[in-house]
Amino acid sequence: MAPTPVNHQVRLAKRPEGAATREHWQFTTEPVGEPADGGVLVKTLSLSLDPAMRGWLNDAKSYIAPVEIGAVMRAGGIGRVIASKNPDFAVGDTVYGTLGVQEYMLVPKEEIKRSGLAKIDLRAGTIHQWLNVLGMPGMTGYFGLMDVGQPKAGETVVISGAAGAVGQTVGQLARIKGCRVVGIAGGQAKCDWVVKELGFDACIDYKAGAAAVRDGLKAHCPKGVDIYFDNVGGEILDAVLARLARKARVIICGAISQYNNANSMPAAGPRNYLSLLVNRARMEGIVVFDYADRFPIAVAELAGYLKDGRMKSKEDVVVGLDTFPEALNRLFSGENFGKLVLQVAEA
Amino acid sequence: MAPTPVNHQVRLAKRPEGAATREHWQFTTEPVGEPADGGVLVKTLSLSLDPAMRGWLNDAKSYIAPVEIGAVMRAGGIGRVIASKNPDFAVGDTVYGTLGVQEYMLVPKEEIKRSGLAKIDLRAGTIHQWLNVLGMPGMTGYFGLMDVGQPKAGETVVISGAAGAVGQTVGQLARIKGCRVVGIAGGQAKCDWVVKELGFDACIDYKAGAAAVRDGLKAHCPKGVDIYFDNVGGEILDAVLARLARKARVIICGAISQYNNANSMPAAGPRNYLSLLVNRARMEGIVVFDYADRFPIAVAELAGYLKDGRMKSKEDVVVGLDTFPEALNRLFSGENFGKLVLQVAEA
Repeated sequence: MAPTPVNHQVRLAKRPEGAATREHWQFTTEPVGEPADGGVLVKTLSLSLDPAMRGWLNDAKSYIAPVEIGAVMRAGGIGRVIASKNPDFAVGDTVYGTLGVQEYMLVPKEEIKRSGLAKIDLRAGTIHQWLNVLGMPGMTGYFGLMDVGQPKAGETVVISGAAGAVGQTVGQLARIKGCRVVGIAGGQAKCDWVVKELGFDACIDYKAGAAAVRDGLKAHCPKGVDIYFDNVGGEILDAVLARLARKARVIICGAISQYNNANSMPAAGPRNYLSLLVNRARMEGIVVFDYADRFPIAVAELAGYLKDGRMKSKEDVVVGLDTFPEALNRLFSGENFGKLVLQVAEA
Repeated sequence: MAPTPVNHQVRLAKRPEGAATREHWQFTTEPVGEPADGGVLVKTLSLSLDPAMRGWLNDAKSYIAPVEIGAVMRAGGIGRVIASKNPDFAVGDTVYGTLGVQEYMLVPKEEIKRSGLAKIDLRAGTIHQWLNVLGMPGMTGYFGLMDVGQPKAGETVVISGAAGAVGQTVGQLARIKGCRVVGIAGGQAKCDWVVKELGFDACIDYKAGAAAVRDGLKAHCPKGVDIYFDNVGGEILDAVLARLARKARVIICGAISQYNNANSMPAAGPRNYLSLLVNRARMEGIVVFDYADRFPIAVAELAGYLKDGRMKSKEDVVVGLDTFPEALNRLFSGENFGKLVLQVAEA
């Protein structure tokens, strides 16, 4: 084995009130140890940057514990096993796991399960597709749409954050299932891509203003919205609520527009929620971890669509661990175009 | 047949912006005709006054068409057939139907179905129980709780408007189904009644303030809220959302606190709606008319509970057609104690 390398890490220095900036992070280095019996050492290749990460910085009850002050920032990612004393993992294996924002992760035997370490098959998709359509965003989109949304052919599905990681999976999957698909995204370039490349029936540019969103929904959803997959919350959620069809399903996956509010609470709730009453509709939250047992089924189906060309994927790759603070904020400004990935090392 | 009587009526004179007051109503009289072939003449005994009536005054898309200006105000009620040229109805039959706020209703053959005219059996319950537990409020509570809420024994059920018509049915039914039941009502007298007479496990007086509601929910729902049956909306909805248990169901039945807003829109939406995400919970609207096919099943079950004493009912009876404008507003000030009934004539 080569001499022990140095591990560069990004740790949470203090909790942000609004957006997290460089002052909230601490850059540390420490030597990388060797795995003890049953453990493995993983070299980080690429990390997934997700809107949910902002929530983990708040000291508040949520679906997952907050990141502690001083701890390495939590992040899912793909790495390569470079040392192993565990019979389930061999040097050279490509693995997914909660690696953290760091160059190396030493996983003791008793942490392997908790870190979700699992081998991935690069024949099903590229490393970056494994962080996108075949990873947590894809799983979120798959189970949110299929289990909560329960789409039927001919129904109208609207998706906010349509060009994002979850949105691209949801929209293409809904189309494969025979639905009419309308995206909402920021800017003409994203809208064009969603329609021309991903085959959505239409896409509304929310940056054109609230009236454009309302008019677009009216024009593109003449029979109302049967399923709304919400990644953004705020005014867009309200606009879609106003156009629900009878027995509509609203899937609450996130509220990107609200995550950087000072107290992490939405500035306002959806005023049009009584549309749920008038239309006998439901609004339901999804947390992807609940479906972990069935990830392999979803991966197999989605990998098939990637292979036969019915599904495309787009990743927005930022390079270098030290760019993490600014890279994360691209999610909230809407600067990222496709699934945001932080490449830490070349594969 | 006796000489044709005079029919006193209450018609909508103009649409209210906030609360409907006497100026929004017009009192008219007209002669009562005789039924043609297939028609019946019904004398109104008692009318149901419901929060939903306020919504029918707005010129807005909802689950039912607005009441037209100049039309007799829509109201469900119980009457007696006093003339009939229809073989399905005999003079002396007691009937339920959309009679309107008037002393007599002449129902032509072709309107019988649309007015929902149906004989009721006074062995199952009194006239006023037929407007309460066995009527629309009871049906709303039954199908909202059973179909949307799907209660399981041991779960915690919270009900706002607990002393109201829908609330009393929901709470007692949830208790019969083995749930822990916590009401929210206005004032100590209502709370005491709900606990001592109806057997709720606890009741929170919302008039004691927002902190009392929060503290009460925390104290009385130590494992969180599995089912919330919401009749009121507003701050109370937000307070309960903050205490949802995993996989909770929120039944949106109404938003009494918001109906008198100038534009009939909630002043604010539920800020805590992301609790649906964190807790994988759902919020769903119910409109009772969707369950009309199954009303007889629910009536049979609830009548059984009334008979064996497991369910009690309380009606708040106001007498005289001319008191309608003020009587209706008692629903929004919370003055009514039990199901609000307008008695138009003695049975």
